[in-house]
Amino acid sequence: MSHTALSDPSGSLVERLDLPPCGHGRLDGMTFTVKDNIDIAAHKTSYGSPAWRDAHAAPAHNAVCVDQLLAAGAHCIGKVVADEFTYSLDGESQFFGTPRNAKAPDRVPGGSSSGSAASIANGLADFSIGTDSGGSIRVPASLCGVWGMRPSLHRISEAGVLPFMPSVSTVGVLAARFENLNAAVRVLLRSSNRSIAPLQRLLLLVDALEISDKAVQNQAYSALERISDSVGITVEPLRFSQIAGGNTPLGDCNTRALRDLQTAEFQSTVGNWIEATKPELGYTFTMAYGNVQRFDRVAALESLVRCERFFEAINAYLVPGTVICFPTTPVIAPKKGTLTTLDNVLDFYDRTMTVTAFSGVGRLPEISAPVLTVEGCPVGLSFAAGHYQDEFLLAAVQEMLGEDADCRA
Amino acid sequence: MSHTALSDPSGSLVERLDLPPCGHGRLDGMTFTVKDNIDIAAHKTSYGSPAWRDAHAAPAHNAVCVDQLLAAGAHCIGKVVADEFTYSLDGESQFFGTPRNAKAPDRVPGGSSSGSAASIANGLADFSIGTDSGGSIRVPASLCGVWGMRPSLHRISEAGVLPFMPSVSTVGVLAARFENLNAAVRVLLRSSNRSIAPLQRLLLLVDALEISDKAVQNQAYSALERISDSVGITVEPLRFSQIAGGNTPLGDCNTRALRDLQTAEFQSTVGNWIEATKPELGYTFTMAYGNVQRFDRVAALESLVRCERFFEAINAYLVPGTVICFPTTPVIAPKKGTLTTLDNVLDFYDRTMTVTAFSGVGRLPEISAPVLTVEGCPVGLSFAAGHYQDEFLLAAVQEMLGEDADCRA
Repeated sequence: MSHTALSDPSGSLVERLDLPPCGHGRLDGMTFTVKDNIDIAAHKTSYGSPAWRDAHAAPAHNAVCVDQLLAAGAHCIGKVVADEFTYSLDGESQFFGTPRNAKAPDRVPGGSSSGSAASIANGLADFSIGTDSGGSIRVPASLCGVWGMRPSLHRISEAGVLPFMPSVSTVGVLAARFENLNAAVRVLLRSSNRSIAPLQRLLLLVDALEISDKAVQNQAYSALERISDSVGITVEPLRFSQIAGGNTPLGDCNTRALRDLQTAEFQSTVGNWIEATKPELGYTFTMAYGNVQRFDRVAALESLVRCERFFEAINAYLVPGTVICFPTTPVIAPKKGTLTTLDNVLDFYDRTMTVTAFSGVGRLPEISAPVLTVEGCPVGLSFAAGHYQDEFLLAAVQEMLGEDADCRA
Repeated sequence: MSHTALSDPSGSLVERLDLPPCGHGRLDGMTFTVKDNIDIAAHKTSYGSPAWRDAHAAPAHNAVCVDQLLAAGAHCIGKVVADEFTYSLDGESQFFGTPRNAKAPDRVPGGSSSGSAASIANGLADFSIGTDSGGSIRVPASLCGVWGMRPSLHRISEAGVLPFMPSVSTVGVLAARFENLNAAVRVLLRSSNRSIAPLQRLLLLVDALEISDKAVQNQAYSALERISDSVGITVEPLRFSQIAGGNTPLGDCNTRALRDLQTAEFQSTVGNWIEATKPELGYTFTMAYGNVQRFDRVAALESLVRCERFFEAINAYLVPGTVICFPTTPVIAPKKGTLTTLDNVLDFYDRTMTVTAFSGVGRLPEISAPVLTVEGCPVGLSFAAGHYQDEFLLAAVQEMLGEDADCRA
């Protein structure tokens, strides 16, 4: 199906849908799109792979999260592009095209929830649901300049979402306005109105700032100064080694912990299917999958232990009332077609995942706010809180910049 | 493959294996069996269903949990029987037979980790790994008289475990001796030696006791008296309504909360596959699946919200230092072949799941200890702690009755 046939200049739609709400509630009147690794009944789920799509029947049921949204009054208008097997942060799909980065059209949208971010930034819907393991909601939200939230691990049902990395994967939301993000996330979280801790402490993860481009650093400092003034709380710089002990660099969250857990789990889900069926694979994915095939999961079990230690250390710091912030991505979006040389790929991935792995090992909720602009391109500023403190984080971010950001949008 | 060919009078083995350890560690010299919904590389995973087995290729990789155990020094000796799609608490498989309940041979072993419990009770291995959503480790552990632990939701990697109910399913361990359970669980949890709260408070979930058979009640009271004396802590009776407010009965955890979440999620995993492929199904499963097909998932979304409220209420009570106990199952094992009339099925399932749903909605770690005997048949006494307090629970149970129980075993 060509994108022209869909009359979709955003390039984000895989399939236009018209699924009216099946109830009334907090999302009355809102529209949403669904990443193409989340089931819509009677429509095939491609997982970003034509081979997967053709080998699997259409699901009989919507994913649980889709039913939650329809029952709360939202209207589903389409299925949107995902990177192949959602195993990428690029947003350049060989099979489904590159969704348009509305605010930086010569740059990639980021992935793997590329269509989710683009459908929002291009104004197609009020919010979109995507998935995030290594940054697949946060990165495209940052690079396209929209809000994105990855909730605490396993707060939102993943039934009907294709199996990816069970210890890492989450379902989350992207939106142009904070109030829409907040409404959709709270429906999915099944949040109550119970009292939550007030915002008391605002930490800055210094290591994440230091590996960011200078202009991103400067913008982040200015934004944090405004936030600090507005809420009357001093920003406290914190190094990852203060959390994890010794001289532990932030990069260990990625290279010596989460990356191995992700690769081992990916071998057991998509990997088993690929080994059994030898499907047609895209060239970018083929390169990445070579590393998956060569990966020695037994040698990597140490990393799984390290993940658990980082989880404990991070969550001992992030008690209720405490938020930690950092640039969502250390860079603005790379130009389209440049993620083809090894140097470019490594620089983008290593630096980005050094930052995104922090919430990954911590199983933290993280919200990327579209508040920075560098060289005319968007970059997100992220806020994270302790595991299962999703409602506190939403309230804290709203207090810090919800209204402000919505006025700027 | 017939059980005779396996020379396995326990009837628990699906396939005899000889997978030596690939490392050394805490499990050196121990043997284990693996429930047949957990991947072993190059061996088909049946999910308790010949139709599923025949439709799927053998996995290229072990499940992550299997690799963790092999790397810690354990030796895998076999793949053991699971109920069809693990969707049962009976342990009577039409396809793979009924594993022998060693301590009550005329009774069912309980399910769905029937082969795991039977392989342990019949002395085939030092421990077994199984899975638990609605009670699939705890129930067979209780009915066969072995230790069983369901950890906190998602503490142990589920990569390589067949998708079942993502918001409910856990990987756990069964063993004849507490020290083996403890060792295997701690490897899978990747536990550290960080300090944990001392046992301070011992609650008794009164509602679970009241729906138990009188003899189970009496035995539980005696056991708790001994435990209370030995640790010097008074047992405090607690009603579920004190946790959840109003007059909320314990049964609401099941009928108005977890059961609907489980059914909705099962529709999205196994349900989608069955609808697409129309495989041959066993008669017991076919009956149960009729209810799954008729289930209105949208009407049931209220139950998902209720699960979240119960989760919050239970965990507000179960702070570190607090353990809550109750009979694992309200009854001893039903006689083989009696779970064929609707009355018998309903009585067994409704009462049992009223108890097991408590840890389900709470996402709690729960340990079933083999310490009660009624009419010569085993029944477990369960101990649960707050979400993610697995290491505290292990230490508390060891303090209360680890050595005592191992001496009796």
